[in-house]
Amino acid sequence: MNSNNSTITVGLVAACMVALTGAVGAADKPSGHPGTPETEMRYQGAPVTIKPEEAKEAVAPEAPGLSKAEFTRAKQIYFERCAGCHGVLRKGATGKPLTPDITLKKGSVYLETFIIYGSPAGMPNWGTSGELTHEDVDIMARFLQHEPPMPPEFGMEQMKASWKVLVKPQDRPKKKMNNLNLDNLFSVTLRDSGEVALIDGDSKKIINIVKTGYAVHISRLSASGRYLYVIGRDAKVNLIDLWLEQPDNVAEIKIGLEARSVETSKYQGYEDKYAIAGAYWPPQYTIMKGDTLEPLKIVATRGMTVDTQDYHPEPRVAAIVASHYHPEFVVNVKETGKILMVNYKDINNLTTTEIGAARFLHDGGFDSTKRYFLVAANQSNKIAVVDTKDDKLVKLIDVGKIPHPGRGANFNDPKYGPVWATGHLGDDTISLIGTDPVKHKGNAWKVVRNLKGQGGGSLFIKTHPKSRNLWVDTVLNPSAEISQSVAVFDIGDLDKPYQVVKIAELAGLGEGPKRVVQPEYNQKGDEVWFSVWNGKEQESAIVILDDKTRKLKHVIKDKRLITPTGKFNVYNTQKDVY
Amino acid sequence: MNSNNSTITVGLVAACMVALTGAVGAADKPSGHPGTPETEMRYQGAPVTIKPEEAKEAVAPEAPGLSKAEFTRAKQIYFERCAGCHGVLRKGATGKPLTPDITLKKGSVYLETFIIYGSPAGMPNWGTSGELTHEDVDIMARFLQHEPPMPPEFGMEQMKASWKVLVKPQDRPKKKMNNLNLDNLFSVTLRDSGEVALIDGDSKKIINIVKTGYAVHISRLSASGRYLYVIGRDAKVNLIDLWLEQPDNVAEIKIGLEARSVETSKYQGYEDKYAIAGAYWPPQYTIMKGDTLEPLKIVATRGMTVDTQDYHPEPRVAAIVASHYHPEFVVNVKETGKILMVNYKDINNLTTTEIGAARFLHDGGFDSTKRYFLVAANQSNKIAVVDTKDDKLVKLIDVGKIPHPGRGANFNDPKYGPVWATGHLGDDTISLIGTDPVKHKGNAWKVVRNLKGQGGGSLFIKTHPKSRNLWVDTVLNPSAEISQSVAVFDIGDLDKPYQVVKIAELAGLGEGPKRVVQPEYNQKGDEVWFSVWNGKEQESAIVILDDKTRKLKHVIKDKRLITPTGKFNVYNTQKDVY
Repeated sequence: MNSNNSTITVGLVAACMVALTGAVGAADKPSGHPGTPETEMRYQGAPVTIKPEEAKEAVAPEAPGLSKAEFTRAKQIYFERCAGCHGVLRKGATGKPLTPDITLKKGSVYLETFIIYGSPAGMPNWGTSGELTHEDVDIMARFLQHEPPMPPEFGMEQMKASWKVLVKPQDRPKKKMNNLNLDNLFSVTLRDSGEVALIDGDSKKIINIVKTGYAVHISRLSASGRYLYVIGRDAKVNLIDLWLEQPDNVAEIKIGLEARSVETSKYQGYEDKYAIAGAYWPPQYTIMKGDTLEPLKIVATRGMTVDTQDYHPEPRVAAIVASHYHPEFVVNVKETGKILMVNYKDINNLTTTEIGAARFLHDGGFDSTKRYFLVAANQSNKIAVVDTKDDKLVKLIDVGKIPHPGRGANFNDPKYGPVWATGHLGDDTISLIGTDPVKHKGNAWKVVRNLKGQGGGSLFIKTHPKSRNLWVDTVLNPSAEISQSVAVFDIGDLDKPYQVVKIAELAGLGEGPKRVVQPEYNQKGDEVWFSVWNGKEQESAIVILDDKTRKLKHVIKDKRLITPTGKFNVYNTQKDVY
Repeated sequence: MNSNNSTITVGLVAACMVALTGAVGAADKPSGHPGTPETEMRYQGAPVTIKPEEAKEAVAPEAPGLSKAEFTRAKQIYFERCAGCHGVLRKGATGKPLTPDITLKKGSVYLETFIIYGSPAGMPNWGTSGELTHEDVDIMARFLQHEPPMPPEFGMEQMKASWKVLVKPQDRPKKKMNNLNLDNLFSVTLRDSGEVALIDGDSKKIINIVKTGYAVHISRLSASGRYLYVIGRDAKVNLIDLWLEQPDNVAEIKIGLEARSVETSKYQGYEDKYAIAGAYWPPQYTIMKGDTLEPLKIVATRGMTVDTQDYHPEPRVAAIVASHYHPEFVVNVKETGKILMVNYKDINNLTTTEIGAARFLHDGGFDSTKRYFLVAANQSNKIAVVDTKDDKLVKLIDVGKIPHPGRGANFNDPKYGPVWATGHLGDDTISLIGTDPVKHKGNAWKVVRNLKGQGGGSLFIKTHPKSRNLWVDTVLNPSAEISQSVAVFDIGDLDKPYQVVKIAELAGLGEGPKRVVQPEYNQKGDEVWFSVWNGKEQESAIVILDDKTRKLKHVIKDKRLITPTGKFNVYNTQKDVY
């Protein structure tokens, strides 16, 4: 695979989905397409979670023919390399729609050319890069003129079949059985090994390596802090009990074929009661029992788009957060651009408020009061603000190109008051949005300031209520110098130029891409942790800085620390501190 | 077409969809398949509302081949004759599922045999009846082993294109411009002419014949009584302003390709503000402005079934009623078996409570207090009771075979107190359900009594608060004697045998099926109206009895009165009196 990162601009990058493109060949070094908002931290070979052989085939009589073998090959290539951007049903998302009504008119020659050479708008050059053979390109051009094959559904029967309770609630301890300072534990995704590392934030020691789904996208804590929920790209959810002598899995389930999000009920009276997970395929979410992952209710998200009110067959579930104002989950549906306030008070009579925002919703977090939820509508270059108290859209705010906040960063701008900030994948700005409609009404829900960072390709931005630093990664920037370092701003003096900290260098590793990803604070807010994410066969590390001095405090190296990416501090995640 | 009704039992009848089977050949006499709960009053030739040529084709490589011409022919036959029972996507409803995972295993010979000979469970004998040729049967058996072709979607763009405001609100009168007693007006479906007749209940004169969609399924009145909404099988909604000098259309729209239901907002403060219409295809509902039919919001109903929690691609919208307890519509989704409480307080932040009931929801009405809504889950042989105050399921009640209440009938059983009654398509019983959980708690939400009527094939049952009579039609009974007459019970003495009134005979018509359908009261409750529904080229009539004496009071005959079926008295419909 092409690993010449520097030839790819971030603008290009944004339109291709790397996780799948990288799947063929299982590279042990980064591929040529460093990712999109879809693909946080997935630039390397990934198993395909939707199995091509399970998708139903459909051949249009008017399209050029394909043999059975060609159809099979085409499905494989499509799910691995194209589905991320174009959608499994080819309705388009980050990439353009590729349904037969469009492709038949384009014809084979046009399609082949496009596949071979790509486009400046973001389509990779599959042919000239050598990643697809001429024969593959020919097959794909014909395949695309037929109806998209439909991956299988995944309903209650399939979920129940995948569901395992490893330790029943009654067999679990009644109190914490270890001496760990759980509040300062970190759950670290080990992307390519399908595990999370549980690291004691005080001693910096690995407590356990827990088997999970592939490329865990997110870790979330139950309201009590006892239970840790993680979800893999393959839609496998693991429930980890932190009260065990050695924290480990106590239940697991698959809630679909592709997924990104998991959350747990946090409203008073419902602590630890429910979990929810959102799937990319099938487009649906599942509400589960919090302590066993027993699937209770599946809800499809297929429906009408927010703007044109057209039916969309594949509205994927992006970020989910738990409301602090109501017994509700805030479920963000990407392709329809709708935010669903799902009230879990009565699962059997489920009440949902559907708030129209903008396409394509992806990731976001609360403001410092936890009343307002801010979420990126990434291809719309907007941040949508939802009032979780009144369950209404407050504002759609224009920001930079392809905002990707992670959960964002909350702090006090000396001039404008409380702000929430996001970085961008498509440009080098950091947008600060006023979040205080009471004492700073004039600044609320406006971009009050744009900072200029190191470059595009930023996935995560972070600060802490006790910190004066705002850390911005640039993990997907095509320049190795930029992707291996972070920028840090002084919150007290935002006009001052940022400082660059060469995190990868501090790790003292050998060869490899050594991308620096996701600043994460410890509980106290006096340390900030970074993953130095290397190839699967290469050494990776976690670099810990003293936040105040911005100097190296510790490096965690361990042969078990394979491709570390996202890190979640228990206390900060549990309490939505970011 | 085979018109030998008497050879078909009601049990058989229930599983075939007549409206579509009758479509080929446009018979001017009733077809051999007198209908199902789906097909109220549609036993004659109907235009196909989903155009086969618009459905996307999909050929499975492993299934036996079809030529393009054969595919086209097969789609036509399928939409006309099979889709009603098996669903356009062949997931099954009244008929069995016919998806390729099932049909490929059965193979061509099995499928051909089934299509030729039918089954006692309800599949018509398409071959031996002569309705399909051997070649057609052969084509259908092959076609069914391929993926179901997908009819087109119908989103906001298509709706807006179909929407016409004929008289703008500001150009309409500010007060009633006619001397009609609107409270006693009747809107009468003229099924095969695509019209409704507006008939003055006092003078029995036809006031106007209004052009509408095909085979209007239902008429509903706005809360104020000014606006009349009707919806055709072809999903065309007409808005009729009763204040015009001559009441007539002021707006129209198409909300899909196939539809059954329309309703209007009745909650205090929202009178006449919104209309809602539910579609069979695409499976969705649309909220519109009440005075213009401007489409505001489309909501898809595709989702998980209530019992197995499997994804269903075609959950059709059946009956819709307006809550009197909240600003809500009660939307019944057939295939998923779910009742949606759609709150219209804020259309842009739409809140919905999804209440699980049972498959397949069809028709129903309120109890006398208008707090409880009772709806038939027809293939489950159940009535679901929803509390529209607390938005919860109260009970699922087992009743007879294929309940079809229309809106049902409310009265006081001398022994059991307030009851709501339903007739059945599949047997001769009338089930009385106790509806008073306060003063008759022991009887509430139970079948307190089963009356025995003339036979199966009942579509409508009716009484009036001022009446002592309970009228039960048997319009789809295969016996002409029974389908041309009605049974009437004495509410004061329910143990007394019913009286038979030969309504068709009273009409004094010539040849024809002369089916007697749908008792409907006038406003005062002292007259009961029946349609005598004859062939399109034959004379039909409306027969009006004096309710007290059960004797003939008047017969309305008019050459414009073509195939009258459903009749809706303005006051009783507006106030939910039934």
